[in-house]
Amino acid sequence: MMKALRFENGKLHLAEIDTPHRSDEALVRVTMAGICNTDLEIVRGYASFNGTLGHEFVGIVEESPDKSQIGRRVVGEINAGCGHCDLCSQQDPRHCLKRTVLGIHTRDGAFAEYLSLPPQNLLSIPDEVDDRQAVFTEPLAAACEILDQVMISPNHRVAVIGDGKLGQLIARVLATTGCNPVLIGKHDDKLELAARAGVKTIELSKLKIDPSNRWDFVVEASGAPDGLKLALDLVRPRGVIILKSTFHGAVEIDTSRIVVDEISMIGSRCGRFEKALKLLAAGSVDVEPLIAAQFKLTDGLAAITEAQQPGVLKVLIKT
Amino acid sequence: MMKALRFENGKLHLAEIDTPHRSDEALVRVTMAGICNTDLEIVRGYASFNGTLGHEFVGIVEESPDKSQIGRRVVGEINAGCGHCDLCSQQDPRHCLKRTVLGIHTRDGAFAEYLSLPPQNLLSIPDEVDDRQAVFTEPLAAACEILDQVMISPNHRVAVIGDGKLGQLIARVLATTGCNPVLIGKHDDKLELAARAGVKTIELSKLKIDPSNRWDFVVEASGAPDGLKLALDLVRPRGVIILKSTFHGAVEIDTSRIVVDEISMIGSRCGRFEKALKLLAAGSVDVEPLIAAQFKLTDGLAAITEAQQPGVLKVLIKT
Repeated sequence: MMKALRFENGKLHLAEIDTPHRSDEALVRVTMAGICNTDLEIVRGYASFNGTLGHEFVGIVEESPDKSQIGRRVVGEINAGCGHCDLCSQQDPRHCLKRTVLGIHTRDGAFAEYLSLPPQNLLSIPDEVDDRQAVFTEPLAAACEILDQVMISPNHRVAVIGDGKLGQLIARVLATTGCNPVLIGKHDDKLELAARAGVKTIELSKLKIDPSNRWDFVVEASGAPDGLKLALDLVRPRGVIILKSTFHGAVEIDTSRIVVDEISMIGSRCGRFEKALKLLAAGSVDVEPLIAAQFKLTDGLAAITEAQQPGVLKVLIKT
Repeated sequence: MMKALRFENGKLHLAEIDTPHRSDEALVRVTMAGICNTDLEIVRGYASFNGTLGHEFVGIVEESPDKSQIGRRVVGEINAGCGHCDLCSQQDPRHCLKRTVLGIHTRDGAFAEYLSLPPQNLLSIPDEVDDRQAVFTEPLAAACEILDQVMISPNHRVAVIGDGKLGQLIARVLATTGCNPVLIGKHDDKLELAARAGVKTIELSKLKIDPSNRWDFVVEASGAPDGLKLALDLVRPRGVIILKSTFHGAVEIDTSRIVVDEISMIGSRCGRFEKALKLLAAGSVDVEPLIAAQFKLTDGLAAITEAQQPGVLKVLIKT
């Protein structure tokens, strides 16, 4: 048996459940997990998920069909594919139609003492990356995904909307291209945090929308429906909006504007972990300042409540 | 003085107005014009336009600063730029921020005896293309724009939503790539028209949505808000939706779906006329079957009423 923070039938609770044992998968003892906005959206009804929450984690492999993994400190890609389709055959189950997703879609997640994932989902963590850094691998990979989708070069004008957890990581990752992105947000303290990492910032109320001076790329990472409307105001004709926010609910948009200005809107989700681990190992992105608090798993409910407070950055759960 | 079909203060009426004379522009005697869905949307409030309607036309140049144009039979690109910005310097005023747009944005249009456009907007029509074909140059160019935005090859699966005027042209243009697109619509007679042109068709009520067999590219040309929702159902993960419909009003969409499936949505508006004229001259796209009716300019109100009837294809206005 083990403890797990579960969302079931619309209710969040700390439960005692069976430790997972699947002979075809690895058993990972979770040492650290991170709370993502997606977890908070699930609690609001997003993705209709029932089960153990959590998809950002670090852990130690205790059992695995791949014996070489046992004892290793790992992070894990959250999409587990069918193993047979074209995508899975190319080692990329992120869009496998039969995939399960750790803590998001029909697979118990990481806010627990143990989790189960296919061995091929696990990656060893370089020694120079500690648990509190490595737990950022998943959201950092999601930020890196943008660079696998669009070609951003130093002379592009790039804006990131949202000074929360994901916006902060995205701004730092995009800055590695030399494009000098600007982070647009509402919170002075969070903008200050980005500024200390060398990121240009604009406080939303001071933002001037100048039709003759718009951005080539606008990343929408505000986590709120209004973000897309602002993105449409900020992007130049024939520019690109990258959508990162997943939330419960719909957005009303004037699609004629997308047509008339020939704007591209690109959805962006999970990235590959290798690149994120490299950035962490090289110290190219410093995630430590983004940690707001750390709770024990037994205080998981309090951890979620803390993460739900407006303006709170990354809340960690130590098992 | 001349007759013109105008939309002013929410009211459509046939008016007697001054013939335009601008020394820096060409004066074109309109011989044929076509009614586009955008005209009908303007009458419903789209683009807040006041003035003479119409942007699809054929005419004879009567005056021009470029004397070589006088007497020529022409079509005209509808975007008139400032002439000075970077875009205009590259001979592409389609996204010039100070542009006027014939019959759509602060420039009187083509449902009149005469219109005025900058000389550089006019293109001579090859002799083998008659007026009733040439009047399709503008919407055909809009269809061709898609091929300037995305790379469609014969092995791509492509669907076009909407069997109306624009959807019909788009399906025919995309078919020239060898991709064998399918046209999805509600009207048996229009689908039959497309089938006669060699286009695969599916009647909407018979459409089966199979998650494992979606389309790489879905062009939304239905002219209605529901089209985008259908497009999201039809496109594969990491597929591309091309938005062609401009209409008055907003659409409610679940943007999380765009993010999770990493879908790209690309707005697509005006295309270059050269390619459309080539397709017409080569007989690659037969537009004649798309003509539903022809009215005199003095019967312009009746022409609009006819075009507003559900299921009616291209209505022409002969001056």
